[in-house]
Amino acid sequence: MRVSELSQQSGVSTASIKYYVREGLLPAPDRVGYNRSEYGSAHVARLRLIRSLLDVGGLSVSATRTVLAAVDDDELPIERLMGTAQRSIPVPEGRPSRTAVAAIGRVGDSLGWHVQPDNPGILIAARVLEHYEALELQELASLLEAFATAADAVARAEVAVAAAAGDRDRMAAIVAVGTVLGDSLFAGLRRIAQEAAAHDARPQHTTD
Amino acid sequence: MRVSELSQQSGVSTASIKYYVREGLLPAPDRVGYNRSEYGSAHVARLRLIRSLLDVGGLSVSATRTVLAAVDDDELPIERLMGTAQRSIPVPEGRPSRTAVAAIGRVGDSLGWHVQPDNPGILIAARVLEHYEALELQELASLLEAFATAADAVARAEVAVAAAAGDRDRMAAIVAVGTVLGDSLFAGLRRIAQEAAAHDARPQHTTD
Repeated sequence: MRVSELSQQSGVSTASIKYYVREGLLPAPDRVGYNRSEYGSAHVARLRLIRSLLDVGGLSVSATRTVLAAVDDDELPIERLMGTAQRSIPVPEGRPSRTAVAAIGRVGDSLGWHVQPDNPGILIAARVLEHYEALELQELASLLEAFATAADAVARAEVAVAAAAGDRDRMAAIVAVGTVLGDSLFAGLRRIAQEAAAHDARPQHTTD
Repeated sequence: MRVSELSQQSGVSTASIKYYVREGLLPAPDRVGYNRSEYGSAHVARLRLIRSLLDVGGLSVSATRTVLAAVDDDELPIERLMGTAQRSIPVPEGRPSRTAVAAIGRVGDSLGWHVQPDNPGILIAARVLEHYEALELQELASLLEAFATAADAVARAEVAVAAAAGDRDRMAAIVAVGTVLGDSLFAGLRRIAQEAAAHDARPQHTTD
């Protein structure tokens, strides 16, 4: 199909489509004859994936390119692909405090976690704990175990779903999309659950 | 103290401090005499809060101003403050699909959630489910229950911690900071837990 038809089918403007090709996110179309490009159904599927990572996952164009290259690389072990997807969200600069890293280590030990010290999540979580400490909101730091236990349950379900995928391509898509968009899914559900929990904690009126 | 001393104590540049005053995030300093401003310890504490919301929470200056105004408003019920903090992260535009909203409604019913239909989390979570559907990654959509159950446990622990706070000021800080920074805390812990779960799921070597 021509770029105009691809635009219509996908809801993505022709300018964006050409931009994604230039930036290496979308494969170049086949050239058929003079000044005419031919896009296929693979381009439609790839455009959906690009928009999910950019718009919902909030990735930069550069991070999206890196994640897509990892998805496309059939030689890349799935664990390495997961690491790439995990690193696609910005990680805070600087070294986290030892206290915060130690607190995360303790809760990880209690849950039997085996992880490399360069896991990007350590920096992200430690930075939050540091701010809780600096703000003298120890109550929030005390929630670490509840958050970690919940993260453990979610991650085990995610890994089980990925492991059950039939082939490498599907597994790669599940890991990349699930890792990136899962932050947003949890953030949304947590907001709903907070309102529900606050409702339940409220003193009940007799007419309620 | 003078602005230079406040800058040194807080690690925030004088330019940023003056910018926060202009933008209404930081209260104006007392004027003592001609061309001299006096900042106090309340300014140090407020600067920490501002930087937590901006740098770790990733809020815009405008969203930070809104959240801080809600924290400062002693007349505002805590549930309304929570709603303000919840809305400080960008919510996707447009209407989510009925199918996605219905799926969230079903899982919420199964967990006994009572929420208003304008809860911002519904839009955020529904948008992710829509993309899972469009990408034909039903496996990821099947994780909704695991994510919602985890969000429920986290939110109940958060509400309990906030409810146990002694006074309104402290409760307000816990709700605002916890709601905004909690997304990042969970995102970090989920990345650690994913690596741990992948490690456990890996075929074991005899030498392991």
